Order: sequence, then C-alpha cells, then structure tokens
Amino acid sequence: MNYCSDCGQPVNLMIPADDHRPRYVCHSCGVIHYQNPKLVVGCIPEWENKILLCRRDIEPKKDKWTLPAGYLENGETVENGAVRETMEETGAAVTGVAPYLLFDIPHINQLYLMFHSRLVKPEYHVTPESSELKLFDEKEIPWDEIAFKVIEKTLEQYFKDRQTGRYPFQIQKIELH
Amino acid sequence: MNYCSDCGQPVNLMIPADDHRPRYVCHSCGVIHYQNPKLVVGCIPEWENKILLCRRDIEPKKDKWTLPAGYLENGETVENGAVRETMEETGAAVTGVAPYLLFDIPHINQLYLMFHSRLVKPEYHVTPESSELKLFDEKEIPWDEIAFKVIEKTLEQYFKDRQTGRYPFQIQKIELH
Repeated sequence: MNYCSDCGQPVNLMIPADDHRPRYVCHSCGVIHYQNPKLVVGCIPEWENKILLCRRDIEPKKDKWTLPAGYLENGETVENGAVRETMEETGAAVTGVAPYLLFDIPHINQLYLMFHSRLVKPEYHVTPESSELKLFDEKEIPWDEIAFKVIEKTLEQYFKDRQTGRYPFQIQKIELH
Repeated sequence: MNYCSDCGQPVNLMIPADDHRPRYVCHSCGVIHYQNPKLVVGCIPEWENKILLCRRDIEPKKDKWTLPAGYLENGETVENGAVRETMEETGAAVTGVAPYLLFDIPHINQLYLMFHSRLVKPEYHVTPESSELKLFDEKEIPWDEIAFKVIEKTLEQYFKDRQTGRYPFQIQKIELH
C-alpha cells in the first residue's frame, strides 16, 4: 500500500497511538488502513469411494491438481462460498456440505476452511479455471502433482479420517518450512 | 474506496472481464482491488460455573457487555488471536482453547470464530477497552445489555450445550432482521 484509498494521498507505515502493530496511516485524512487475513473456502467432493480433483488452468501452479476452493466473497456465507467455488471450478453441484478442516497459513495471511461434501451426481466439466476434472480413488491420488501444501494436508487428513468414517472438525497450521 | 492504494489514481467500480462481481479497478495501473470478509476471533472464558464478560469502554456499544473478541491480525493463528484478544480486553490468560462456534454475518462482511476456553486463574482487570470485568453465572447474564447479537447467540448456544457438557463445533448465520 502506497496511497490512501480514501483520499489518494501517500500513506506511511507506523504504529498508531494505542496500538502495537505497524499500520498504513494517512496523515492527510487520518484514516488507518488495517490489513487482515483472507479466508479461502472449498470442498472435498466425494462420489462413492472417489474424490474429485481439478487440474489448474490458471497460475499459480498451472497444471497441478487441487480441490475446488477460492476466496470468500463479501456478502456470502462460508458454506455458500464453498459450494459456489466448487460449481465455478468443476461444474459440479455438491450436497451434505459440512465444515471439516480449518488451516491457519499465517506466513501468507490466509486461512482455508475446507468442507466435507458429496457430489449430487457424477457430473462435472472443464471450466475456465480447470483444464481437467477427474475422480480419484485413494491409490490414484497424484501426490507429487498437488498444487498446494494445504490441499495435500487436506487430502491426507481426509483419507486418515475415512478409515473411521468420522470427520471431526479440527484446526491445523501450515508452516513455511 | 476512491483511489488506487498502489498508484494513487482514481478507481472505478466495475465488473472485470472473466468476473461476475463489481470490483474497484484502477484504469491507470490496472490493479483490481478485491474486498473480502474479515474474521473476528474471541473466547468464552469459563471459571467454574461462571463466564467472564467485559463491559465495553469503547464505541460502538460503549457500556454494553461482551465477550473478548477482535479482528484476527496478519501473521497470527486463529487460536493465538483469540487468546491475545482475551488478554488485551480482560487481562486474563486462558487455557483449554477449542474452536466452538463460527458465525457468518454476511450483511456486514464479517465472520466470528468463538473458542471455548477456561481461565487459568480467576484473575482479570480493567483494560483500555473494558471498564469492568465480571464473572457471571447463567442466571446473572445481563441479556438486555449484551453489545452484539453474535455475542447473545454465542451465550445462548453455550448455555444450551452446557446442559450436555459437550460443545460440538457448528456454524450459524446472523441475519440483519
């Protein structure tokens, strides 16, 4: 951030009075511009014994495999956001959507909330964001071609919990190294 | 948002190509400024059969009662954020911190994640944000003086679940009316 989004004048990074952290402050109009983590919401779409992965057709990590997920938008609920992202990236409708894994990713100021879900029917298609969609059983997962560590961790936990048939909500942290 | 925070030129609200929602777009440098919901994290601090509430010493809702909670900061985990806010607003350390209730509040582009927790010891004090701290048992809760609907809903669910001694994670939605 270089300029105040309210008045257009330059901002400075400084610790305001009664605060402990550096913030972008506009000395012209006085506004303090707080910056906060963003939440990504997504689904693990199940069909029978398989789950649906998307091959990314956009950067970063183009051509790698991922689960459908994206930024929560203003005005929507987390569940609606996860369902919307799944539709946008896979063309598939999901049901039985339940909160499952929350990941802190503090080094990139992100959170991921992944939902357990089932495909309504085994219908999906290529989209502007995904060049290929495929149902994988556990043995077929392309572990060396998963786009992001958070998706790898989601899949690992999912297959672990699937052995018991229970998917208790939990929080995990993704670290840089 | 009136000006581009990158280059300082005016922005326009428009739907970018390949998008479905209006965004603030800078025609000078081309940056699209996405705006996303913010996450508030907080605790329900228990001590024996009581819970700790704070009387707000800041606007909005000055002098009303609330649970300790505030915006998650960049670079911190949700649990650390909830513990930090509790310390900042009550002077109290908490332990046994477990995720409990997630509230969608789409009409104000906020989410609240409230944790179940216990005071380490019954020690707390007035802070710059709280003019009074008090342990309440269920019969003493000042229901007509609770600052926010999300806090009222948190307390209602907590006292309901306390009858069973189990606090399963769940998502609720706060609506405008």
